[in-house]
Amino acid sequence: MKKRILFINPVGHDECDKEVFEYLQQYRDPDTEIVVESLPAGLPKMLEYSCYEALIAEPMLRRIKKADLEGYDACIIGCYFDPFLDTAKEICHHMVVTAPAEAGMHIAATIGDSFSVIVVRNKTIPEMREYVYKRGFGRYLASMRSLEIPVRELQADPEKTKNRMREKIRQALEEDMAEVILLGCTVEIGFFKELQEELGIPVIDANIAPLKYAEFLCSIRDCGAGWYTSKIGKYESPDDAELRAWGMRD
Amino acid sequence: MKKRILFINPVGHDECDKEVFEYLQQYRDPDTEIVVESLPAGLPKMLEYSCYEALIAEPMLRRIKKADLEGYDACIIGCYFDPFLDTAKEICHHMVVTAPAEAGMHIAATIGDSFSVIVVRNKTIPEMREYVYKRGFGRYLASMRSLEIPVRELQADPEKTKNRMREKIRQALEEDMAEVILLGCTVEIGFFKELQEELGIPVIDANIAPLKYAEFLCSIRDCGAGWYTSKIGKYESPDDAELRAWGMRD
Amino acid sequence: MKKRILFINPVGHDECDKEVFEYLQQYRDPDTEIVVESLPAGLPKMLEYSCYEALIAEPMLRRIKKADLEGYDACIIGCYFDPFLDTAKEICHHMVVTAPAEAGMHIAATIGDSFSVIVVRNKTIPEMREYVYKRGFGRYLASMRSLEIPVRELQADPEKTKNRMREKIRQALEEDMAEVILLGCTVEIGFFKELQEELGIPVIDANIAPLKYAEFLCSIRDCGAGWYTSKIGKYESPDDAELRAWGMRD
Amino acid sequence: MKKRILFINPVGHDECDKEVFEYLQQYRDPDTEIVVESLPAGLPKMLEYSCYEALIAEPMLRRIKKADLEGYDACIIGCYFDPFLDTAKEICHHMVVTAPAEAGMHIAATIGDSFSVIVVRNKTIPEMREYVYKRGFGRYLASMRSLEIPVRELQADPEKTKNRMREKIRQALEEDMAEVILLGCTVEIGFFKELQEELGIPVIDANIAPLKYAEFLCSIRDCGAGWYTSKIGKYESPDDAELRAWGMRD
Amino acid sequence: MKKRILFINPVGHDECDKEVFEYLQQYRDPDTEIVVESLPAGLPKMLEYSCYEALIAEPMLRRIKKADLEGYDACIIGCYFDPFLDTAKEICHHMVVTAPAEAGMHIAATIGDSFSVIVVRNKTIPEMREYVYKRGFGRYLASMRSLEIPVRELQADPEKTKNRMREKIRQALEEDMAEVILLGCTVEIGFFKELQEELGIPVIDANIAPLKYAEFLCSIRDCGAGWYTSKIGKYESPDDAELRAWGMRD
Amino acid sequence: MKKRILFINPVGHDECDKEVFEYLQQYRDPDTEIVVESLPAGLPKMLEYSCYEALIAEPMLRRIKKADLEGYDACIIGCYFDPFLDTAKEICHHMVVTAPAEAGMHIAATIGDSFSVIVVRNKTIPEMREYVYKRGFGRYLASMRSLEIPVRELQADPEKTKNRMREKIRQALEEDMAEVILLGCTVEIGFFKELQEELGIPVIDANIAPLKYAEFLCSIRDCGAGWYTSKIGKYESPDDAELRAWGMRD
Repeated sequence: MKKRILFINPVGHDECDKEVFEYLQQYRDPDTEIVVESLPAGLPKMLEYSCYEALIAEPMLRRIKKADLEGYDACIIGCYFDPFLDTAKEICHHMVVTAPAEAGMHIAATIGDSFSVIVVRNKTIPEMREYVYKRGFGRYLASMRSLEIPVRELQADPEKTKNRMREKIRQALEEDMAEVILLGCTVEIGFFKELQEELGIPVIDANIAPLKYAEFLCSIRDCGAGWYTSKIGKYESPDDAELRAWGMRD
Repeated sequence: MKKRILFINPVGHDECDKEVFEYLQQYRDPDTEIVVESLPAGLPKMLEYSCYEALIAEPMLRRIKKADLEGYDACIIGCYFDPFLDTAKEICHHMVVTAPAEAGMHIAATIGDSFSVIVVRNKTIPEMREYVYKRGFGRYLASMRSLEIPVRELQADPEKTKNRMREKIRQALEEDMAEVILLGCTVEIGFFKELQEELGIPVIDANIAPLKYAEFLCSIRDCGAGWYTSKIGKYESPDDAELRAWGMRD
Repeated sequence: MKKRILFINPVGHDECDKEVFEYLQQYRDPDTEIVVESLPAGLPKMLEYSCYEALIAEPMLRRIKKADLEGYDACIIGCYFDPFLDTAKEICHHMVVTAPAEAGMHIAATIGDSFSVIVVRNKTIPEMREYVYKRGFGRYLASMRSLEIPVRELQADPEKTKNRMREKIRQALEEDMAEVILLGCTVEIGFFKELQEELGIPVIDANIAPLKYAEFLCSIRDCGAGWYTSKIGKYESPDDAELRAWGMRD
Repeated sequence: MKKRILFINPVGHDECDKEVFEYLQQYRDPDTEIVVESLPAGLPKMLEYSCYEALIAEPMLRRIKKADLEGYDACIIGCYFDPFLDTAKEICHHMVVTAPAEAGMHIAATIGDSFSVIVVRNKTIPEMREYVYKRGFGRYLASMRSLEIPVRELQADPEKTKNRMREKIRQALEEDMAEVILLGCTVEIGFFKELQEELGIPVIDANIAPLKYAEFLCSIRDCGAGWYTSKIGKYESPDDAELRAWGMRD
Repeated sequence: MKKRILFINPVGHDECDKEVFEYLQQYRDPDTEIVVESLPAGLPKMLEYSCYEALIAEPMLRRIKKADLEGYDACIIGCYFDPFLDTAKEICHHMVVTAPAEAGMHIAATIGDSFSVIVVRNKTIPEMREYVYKRGFGRYLASMRSLEIPVRELQADPEKTKNRMREKIRQALEEDMAEVILLGCTVEIGFFKELQEELGIPVIDANIAPLKYAEFLCSIRDCGAGWYTSKIGKYESPDDAELRAWGMRD
Repeated sequence: MKKRILFINPVGHDECDKEVFEYLQQYRDPDTEIVVESLPAGLPKMLEYSCYEALIAEPMLRRIKKADLEGYDACIIGCYFDPFLDTAKEICHHMVVTAPAEAGMHIAATIGDSFSVIVVRNKTIPEMREYVYKRGFGRYLASMRSLEIPVRELQADPEKTKNRMREKIRQALEEDMAEVILLGCTVEIGFFKELQEELGIPVIDANIAPLKYAEFLCSIRDCGAGWYTSKIGKYESPDDAELRAWGMRD
C-alpha cells in the first residue's frame, strides 16, 4: 500500500533534513514515500527547554493539520519529547501521527522486559520520565542515563558521542539491568547499528522507530480493519466550523 | 507585605475580566493588588480542546515572562487545565506562578481525604485525570463528574447550572464518597458559597483557590525563608542570552 | 518483504482453522503468507480454565520452537490469554511471536486513552486483568465486561452474540468511558466490523490485531534495523546443547 | 487578619520552646501571634521510636482539643512524623492543625519536581516513607538520606551537624537528582538558610514550613471562602456529648 | 507446642470478653491457651473514631509490653483497625503480636484473588482503606461495603445484622466480583459460619483469623526456624534502659 | 490434627528428595507427616528457564490433582518460582497448595517492613519481580540480589555458596535497607540458620517456609472455620465431567 509520510523536524532550521531523509530511506518500506521538513526559520533550534516546545506549538500544529488535509498518510513529530503528540491526534481526521518515544517504548516493551533511555542532558529527565509513566511504561523503565552533551554538539565529535553512549549503555545493562536501550534524542542519529552489534542488545533509534510505527499505524487503518484514533473522549476534535475559524480547515 | 498579582484569563476575549476582578477583590488579602487580563483578541475563546491550549501557548508565555520582568509578585493562569504551568515555572525568576488545579488539589488534599472534580464536559476528563496523577493526587481522587454544559453556556442560565452542580455534587458525596468538591472550571464562578453552605462540605472555587495559593507562595518567598521554584532540574531556565534571543528578556 | 506467519489455534481441534485462515487472508499484507494450525487432537478444546493452558504448554511450545527452526518469520498464539507468550519469546532465536492481548493493547493504547475488554466469561477476568497490569496497560483499562457466553457457544447463534456484544460495548462507552474496545477472545471472530461502523469507535478483533502486529515485528527486524527480542535477561534462551537435550534443537 | 497559632513541641521538656519561639518570630506574618508550648514533664524527650509517639497521644490530643475550644486559630504539631495529625483534624471544629511533613511536602511539590528528606536516623525512614506515600507524594520522593545523628545530639555540635547535612544534601542532589531538600526533623533548626544560599536550591525548614502553611490554612478559612476540614468521612468528629464524656468538650 | 495467647479487647469494658473467649475456644489449636482481657474501665467503649484509638494507645501498649515480659507467646489486638500493631511489634522481644486486618488480609490474599470488607460504618472506610494499601493488599481490594450499623448495636438484633450482612456480601460478590469476604469488625462475631455455608464462599471472621495467625507466627518462631520480628529498621526497639525509664521493662 | 503433606521437587531427578525430607522433619509440626517426591526422570533437572517450567506443567499438575484425590492435606510446589501455583489452586477441591515465594513473602511482610531476595542468577529476576508485584508485595521489595551461582552448583562448594550469600545479604541490609532476607531457591537449603544467627536478622528458608505455611492453611481449613480456596472467580474449577475427561478425576 502506497503511503506518504511527513517527518517534521520541529525546529527552526533545516540543517538536519537531508541527513534524516537519507537515513530513513534506508529503513522505509518500499511503498513508503518520505518527506522531511522543518519549521520556519526564527523558531527555536532545539527543544531542550519546555518553553521552546511552547514556541513551536502553534506553527507545528498548523503544519500538521494542513498535512492531514493534504492527504498525507502519516506524520512523525521528530523529537523525543513527543511534543504535542496528543494534540496532533486530537485535530487529525485521516492522517496518523506518532513520535519517537511513543514508537520506541511500544517496541521496547514488546522485545524486552525493561529499557533504559540514553538522554542528552539531565535537564530533560523529569519531563521524559513523566511521559514514560503517563503512557503506562513506568513498569519497564530501568533507568534514564544522560550523555551530558547538549543537542547542538551531539554530532560535533561523533567518536566522543559514541564513546559516551557506549559507557552509558554499559552502565544501564550492568547496573540497571536494562534489556533494551532507547536513544532519547533524534539527533543521536547514526549510532544505533554499531552499538547494537557490538553490545548484542537491541538499541532503538529515535528516527527509525517512529517511521516503522507510522507504517504500522497506516497498515491497521488501511488493511480493511479501519483502526484509527478514537474520536470520542481524549481525541475528540473541535467541529469543522471551529477548526475553520482557526484556519485549520479550508 | 504588598504583592501585585496578575490573573490571566488565557482566552482571546475580556468578557469575564471585570467579573473575575470584582469576585477576587472579595477574597484577597488586604495587601494584595489584583490585575485581571486576558489575551489578545483573535485567540480561542475557551480551551475545551487541547489544540486551543496550543494556540495560546506562545502569547501567554510571553505575557507571563514579561510580567516576571515587570516585577509582578505572582501570576495565576486562570484555567483549570493549568495550561503550561510547568513551562511558566521554567521561565520565571522572581514571580511565582500557579493555577486552579494545582492550588485546589493542594487545598483539598489538606482538608479532606478524597475529592471529586465537577467538570464541564466529559471531553475534559482524560486530560484532567492525567494531570491529577501527574501531580501525585491520584490517591485522593474519588471521581470526576461532568455537568455536560459547555463552558460558553455555564453562565447563560445560572439556576440551571447550579441545579446541575447540586445534582453532581450529591452523587459525588453519596456514590463516590468524596469529602471535598473541586469546581473544575474558572467559569463555574459564583456558585461555590451557596452550595458549600447548603451541603455542608467544602466546595473549592477555581478562581479563589489559586489567588490564595499565590498569596501563600509569595509569603514563603518573602517572609525571610526565600523559598522559590528550584532552578535545577525540571524548572531550570534557559540562560539570559537565550531568553533574550527569543524576546523574553530585555 | 515476503514473510511466512504461523497462526496457532492452541486447542485440540481444527474446527476453526479454515475460518480463521480465510478471515486473516482479507487483512494480511500482500507479502504475507499465512498458515493456520491447531494442536493435536486429545488436547483441550478451549482454554477457559488455567489448567487447560497447562495441558497445552508442552506441545504448543515444541511446535513453536519447531516453527522457529523451520524458518517461519512469525508465530501468533491464537488465544486472548496470550498463553506462554513470554516462554515462546525465550526459546526462539529468529521467529517473532505475538498474541492477541499483547497486540491489541499496544494498538488500543496508541489510538485511544482508555479501553474496555469484552470477555466471554467472568471467570477469565482475574487472569486477564493481571496480564493487563503485568504488561503496563493498567492505566488504560476502563473495564472488563463479560458476555457470559461460553467460548464453545459464541458462534452458535451469531445474532445473539452480536446483540450481547453491542449491549456490553455500549455500557463500556457510556458507563466506563472507554474510548477503544478490545474483543477478548479469538472466537469473537467476524463481529468487529459491523459494530465498529455502527458505534463509531475502534473495535479491535483478536485475530487481526496479532496478524498486523506480527507483520510489524517482522518489519522492524527485517528493514535493516535488526530489532528483535533481547536475549539478555527475561528472554535469555537455554543454550543449544540444553535445547537439543529437550528435543528443541535438531 | 489577626491569628493566634500554637506550636506544640510534642515532648516532655521545654528546652527548645524559647529557641523555637524566637526562630518563628522572624518568619511569621505580622498579624500572627505565636505561642510555643511543650507537653508535661514525664513524657518522652523525643519521638524517635513509635512507642514514644503512643505515649504522647492522649495528653497531646487533649491539649489540641483544649486549644480548639480556647479559640486558637491554628496549631502546629512540631515533629516531622506529623504524629496524630489526622486525629487532631478529626476532633477540631474551628482550629486548623498542620505539621512539618504535611506542610513541607506541599511546598516542595509546588516548587520542584522531586525532593529528598534529610532524616536523623535510618530507623525513622520506614515510617516516614510510608507517610510520604500515604499523603500522595511518593511520585516526588527522590530519596531519604540519614544524618545518623540522634535527635538529642543534633544541636550539640552545630558545625558537625551542618557539615553532615551538606554532605547528605550534595548526595541527594547529585546521585538522587533531588530538586528540593526537606529537613526531616524540627530539631534540625537554624541550618536551612546558610545551606540554601550556599547550594542554590530550596531547603525547607521543618519549623517554618508548618508556620507558613498554618497561616495559609487560616487565610482560606477566614478570607470569606470558609474552607476548612471536611467534616464528613475521615475527619468526622464524635458528637459533642461523646467528646464531653471524654473531657474534650466543656 | 504449648502456647499462651492474650486476646485484648482494646476497649474500656469487659462485656464481650466471655463471649470472645468461648468463641475462640472452639477454633483454637489444642495446645493453645487463651486469655481474653479488656482495658480498664474509663477508656472508650469502642474505637469508631480515631481519637478513641489515641486514648487507648498508652494503656494498651503498656499492657502489651507487660504481657511480653510475662512470657505470653502471642497477643491479639482485637480491633479491625489493628490499632498500634506496628508499635506493638516495635516494643516486643519475644511475644508475637497480630490483629484482625493483618491476619485476615494474609488469609484472603492466599485463598482468593480479591476480597471485600464488610465494615460497620462509612466513617471507618478511609482509615481502613489506607491500611489495606499500606500493607500491600490494595491489588486485592474489590470493595468496602458498610452495614451502617454502629458497633454498639451490631449484636442488638442479630437477625437484622445478619440480613444486612447477607445483602452487602451479595453486592460484593455480584457487583464488585469479590472472591473472599472479610468481616471488618470483631463485634461482627458469630455470623461467618452460616453466611459462608449459605453463600458458598469464604467469610473470614475477625476474631478467629488473628487467633490462627498468632498460632502460625508462634509456630515459625518455635519450630526451630526462629523467625520473629526483625529488630533492625522499622521494628527496632528502644534499648532496655529507655524502656525501663518508661516503666516498660522491670 | 494429623495432616499429610506432599512436597514435590518439580524436577526430573530425585537427588534432593532424601535431603529435603530429613531437613523438613526437623521443622514440621509433630502431627505432620511429610512425603517428598520428584517428577519422573526425563523432565528438566532444574527450572532456571521458563521453558522448563512449561515442560513440567502437565505431569506436575496431574500429580497434584491425583494427590488431592488421594486425600493429601497439603501440597508444596518446591520451587521459588511457585510454578503453576494458581493453576493448582484452580483444580484442587480439598488439598491446599502453597509454594516458597507465596509462603516466604507472607511471612516476611509480617515480621518486617521490607525484604530482599537472594536469587541464584540474574536471569531469574524479571520473572520473580513480576511475581512479587502480582502478589501485592512490591511495596516490601528492597532488592533482588543474585549469587550468580547456577542451581546445579549451589551445593557443590557449600562454603563458597555461604560466603557469597553472606556478602549479598550484607549488601541488602546496608545498601538496600532490607529488614528480612528471603532465600530465593529451594536448593539454597541448609544455610539460613547460621546466617540468621550471625547477622541477627530473619533469613527465610525456601523449604521450611512453605511447610509451615501449608500447616497453617490446613489449620484454618480444619479448625472448624472451614476456610479454603474460594471456588468462585479465579480459582473456579472445571466441573467433574470435564476433569474426568482429562484424566484428572477418577
